[in-house]
Amino acid sequence: MTKTAYSVKKDQTVSIEKGSVTTGPFPSSRKVYIPGKMYPEIRVALREVDLDPSANEPPVRVYDTSGPYSDPKSDIDIRKGLPKLEWRKKKKGKTQLTYARAGIITPEMEYVAIRENLGLLTPNPQLPTPITPEFVRSEVASGRAIIPANINHPEAEPMIIGRNFLVKINANIGNSAIGSSIEEEVEKMVWATRWGADTIMDLSTGKNIHETREWIIRNSPVPVGTVPIYQALEKTGGVAEDLTWKIYRDTLIEQAEQGVDYFTIHAGVRLAYIPLTANRVTGIVSRGGSILAKWCLAHHQENFTYTHFEEICEIMRAYDVSFSLGDGLRPGSIADANDEAQFAELKTLGELTKIAWNHDCQVMIEGPGHVPMHLIKENMEKQLEYCHEAPFYTLGPLTTDIAPGYDHITSGIGAAMIGWYGTAMLCYVTPKEHLGLPDRDDVKTGVITYKIAAHAADLAKGHPGARLRDDALSKARFEFRWRDQFNLSLDPETAEDFHDQTLPAEGAKLAHFCSMCGPKFCSMKITQEVREYAIKQGMKEMSDKFRESGAEIYQNNLALSGTKV
Amino acid sequence: MTKTAYSVKKDQTVSIEKGSVTTGPFPSSRKVYIPGKMYPEIRVALREVDLDPSANEPPVRVYDTSGPYSDPKSDIDIRKGLPKLEWRKKKKGKTQLTYARAGIITPEMEYVAIRENLGLLTPNPQLPTPITPEFVRSEVASGRAIIPANINHPEAEPMIIGRNFLVKINANIGNSAIGSSIEEEVEKMVWATRWGADTIMDLSTGKNIHETREWIIRNSPVPVGTVPIYQALEKTGGVAEDLTWKIYRDTLIEQAEQGVDYFTIHAGVRLAYIPLTANRVTGIVSRGGSILAKWCLAHHQENFTYTHFEEICEIMRAYDVSFSLGDGLRPGSIADANDEAQFAELKTLGELTKIAWNHDCQVMIEGPGHVPMHLIKENMEKQLEYCHEAPFYTLGPLTTDIAPGYDHITSGIGAAMIGWYGTAMLCYVTPKEHLGLPDRDDVKTGVITYKIAAHAADLAKGHPGARLRDDALSKARFEFRWRDQFNLSLDPETAEDFHDQTLPAEGAKLAHFCSMCGPKFCSMKITQEVREYAIKQGMKEMSDKFRESGAEIYQNNLALSGTKV
Repeated sequence: MTKTAYSVKKDQTVSIEKGSVTTGPFPSSRKVYIPGKMYPEIRVALREVDLDPSANEPPVRVYDTSGPYSDPKSDIDIRKGLPKLEWRKKKKGKTQLTYARAGIITPEMEYVAIRENLGLLTPNPQLPTPITPEFVRSEVASGRAIIPANINHPEAEPMIIGRNFLVKINANIGNSAIGSSIEEEVEKMVWATRWGADTIMDLSTGKNIHETREWIIRNSPVPVGTVPIYQALEKTGGVAEDLTWKIYRDTLIEQAEQGVDYFTIHAGVRLAYIPLTANRVTGIVSRGGSILAKWCLAHHQENFTYTHFEEICEIMRAYDVSFSLGDGLRPGSIADANDEAQFAELKTLGELTKIAWNHDCQVMIEGPGHVPMHLIKENMEKQLEYCHEAPFYTLGPLTTDIAPGYDHITSGIGAAMIGWYGTAMLCYVTPKEHLGLPDRDDVKTGVITYKIAAHAADLAKGHPGARLRDDALSKARFEFRWRDQFNLSLDPETAEDFHDQTLPAEGAKLAHFCSMCGPKFCSMKITQEVREYAIKQGMKEMSDKFRESGAEIYQNNLALSGTKV
Repeated sequence: MTKTAYSVKKDQTVSIEKGSVTTGPFPSSRKVYIPGKMYPEIRVALREVDLDPSANEPPVRVYDTSGPYSDPKSDIDIRKGLPKLEWRKKKKGKTQLTYARAGIITPEMEYVAIRENLGLLTPNPQLPTPITPEFVRSEVASGRAIIPANINHPEAEPMIIGRNFLVKINANIGNSAIGSSIEEEVEKMVWATRWGADTIMDLSTGKNIHETREWIIRNSPVPVGTVPIYQALEKTGGVAEDLTWKIYRDTLIEQAEQGVDYFTIHAGVRLAYIPLTANRVTGIVSRGGSILAKWCLAHHQENFTYTHFEEICEIMRAYDVSFSLGDGLRPGSIADANDEAQFAELKTLGELTKIAWNHDCQVMIEGPGHVPMHLIKENMEKQLEYCHEAPFYTLGPLTTDIAPGYDHITSGIGAAMIGWYGTAMLCYVTPKEHLGLPDRDDVKTGVITYKIAAHAADLAKGHPGARLRDDALSKARFEFRWRDQFNLSLDPETAEDFHDQTLPAEGAKLAHFCSMCGPKFCSMKITQEVREYAIKQGMKEMSDKFRESGAEIYQNNLALSGTKV
């Protein structure tokens, strides 16, 4: 990896340097670009990992969110932004849902179909539901999946969120009044997508919100989400009571114009639900939710994003900004999980989903939060029921409150489970959750943890394509192809670094043992000997015979005779 | 925390220094010792965390595995070892199971009953099944729980493993031919128990196995497990074929004499099952399993630990060493999960359990390994069925193979789930798994990750005592008692350090905001204002009224009138 200096300039705003982000290929990897069949001009970006010649196997293809930054042939200049994908749909007032309902397969739909299949097979005969462009269209048409794709963000490579597709992950970035510069945020975006973030959300709340977002969007190869109420509140000087529909509406238009692909809108925080949070251990923990709650109480009025919802839909439709209906009343502690306030809001989000669909808007639904394992499934079931199968997008959930500093793990557990149950996108949590702003290392740890959760969910859902990488890596491990093991992993650098901490010599990467057991004790080595022995002794045939004749009898015979094979 | 230098002396064997381990209390914490009622001489060690006076709440008690090392009043000298607990049962040939079946409640049983209840309430009326000494006895008598307690290890504080108790975790330590000194291993044991390891396993395979183990046992406040085949193999110079029953038997007696509390015995690796592994992606990955497989094949004979199982039982019974029946054929990759070889062995472990029980031996059963989420439950169900509800003790399982360097996380997901399903003890996995030997930091990361998994499982199992700590921490968080939040967490140092990376000033720990949102945007702060406002406006009454009159009607009224509260 070619790593440029990670410069942090606290007070600068526009002096962005050309090469101030991380670029370069992954080890033994090449970018490949698959053209479309319906739309030959599209080029679906994937990554191929070359294996050691001794493996005698073709390269392993992996899903790739890193955009042009990991392609050495790209000329990266963040002052110019990424090249625009000219084939992207850009007609105002027509959403991906509009086209899908009309039976039209867009270039974006073909792109995601090829991407989900890793370009290997279109359709992939191994998949229970073939990911064809037509299947993508039908899932979008039904509302079960969305392709967040603002017509003003043509730099982004299309990506689909739905429970019949690979589970996606989001990384939150963004500065606050206290930390970080614009350049740092752009690098965080590049860094997060390098490690696997499928979308990023810019949650900036400090100065220069508009400018920070502009730099992020122009350079982002993935869809970008925001929570517009944050910027609206900045415009009031931070006084929630001074928010107005007009300020909010203007903010939506401003951000939609820039190219934001999805907005979190907390329209389910209704006046009537606020008292339901009064006896909670941790009240309202969503920033957006608490701002709107404060506004509602101050004015004795219903949430203006609820009362103006149809007008919001019109703005969203114009640019094809997807809704991410926010869970402003999500539980912030184990004690508050699955309570009345949470589910009352969820039901309202379901009602709003139907309204948004009437306007051809794409919709996903945000979910918690803090939920103990035994209550996670109910979240998924209720979401499917109340929200008519619109994709679910959850934060974790965190399965215990007692480990600040490790909440990527407390939440990774819940994320993997809810991903398996059907959540379409998982919002990452970093080790700094509850404690501070994530830095570069935290972003990476959060993204890798969530790639693990999403991939574990893909395996559990039985997505056969998903296991290809596990099998390739395990085979490399078993055959002591150390470099292949590192290169196939989610984080090759860390894997190699950890190995080298005990056995730094280059020769050790060719050795048929490792530091855990030493040369004599290596179980993998012994198993290889067992296998060779087995082959020599015709154990393979014995094994087959054993299977044919019924295991019980054979076992009993052996047990009785205590004898040889 | 008083941290002494972490000395690593590669070639030393006996020059152990008095103070070469980590000692000192946790922040704002005191050790408390609860006397027994039946056995007033026992003193159950727990930890109390004092809260800020503004909380106006009693200290929070937490389960404590750290032994005398965290008590400033202790005089720690690892050359002398820990003081022996004189009240521990020590009659040769009588196990905890012998007593339990005879209706006798031992001091060990009363100890664990108080410990499981945190000494707060005996019995704890909140618990679905009261953890009384009699309940402990009945669970041990039924074989559903074990108290690993070698009569020659009176330094250890009693601890129970069973699915009707708190989920426990084990940390593996031990040197190999390649790394680490004795002193380093003793410190790893102290370090692992400091962060929450309920047992440790000494898996040393290098030089000085006997001596390393002696130092560990004499200084360990928790039960110690081993895999005796490792030392037996050392005695043959590492040649598996040269193993004999006599070498193995002598090794068992040697280790039992020293005070090892449980042995992993791979008696289920039967000759007939070895061919079942031939077509696996990763063959046999258990070291013990592969050693025995090699022996079986070389001699064309049944596994000698299987054929001599009753003699092994006699040794185990003499010292009350518990069986940990090893899963030598566990899957080492997602591809191999839940296969014929694995379940054939498990069934045999169930048969051996009954034999061991006939000898009054305590038994637990080891489980995998690498298992995708959707196949985890089957492991628990089959284990309960085949092994007659003997406690399950699993390694992870890892839910994907693609993240070497992060296998504490891939496995923490599986561990939490299988703990919820009923696994009684979880064997930790460190970030170095598959790559190298864990160092001090890796041990800590592994232990904390597994404490998270175990605690998440306790919450999901509905152990009401478990939530006390979550609620106390969440309340502290909500009330901006930063120090209480740190002190109640599993790792106070890391939590404080992460906070201070963004807001290092001491005053920030008293501030009613944090770095994530800044002072104006803090959702917790806004919620507090909402709550105050709500109280002022009589919202509490409204809320109650709302609940009484039926949420739907009230909501609809509000929706129609779009109006005030």
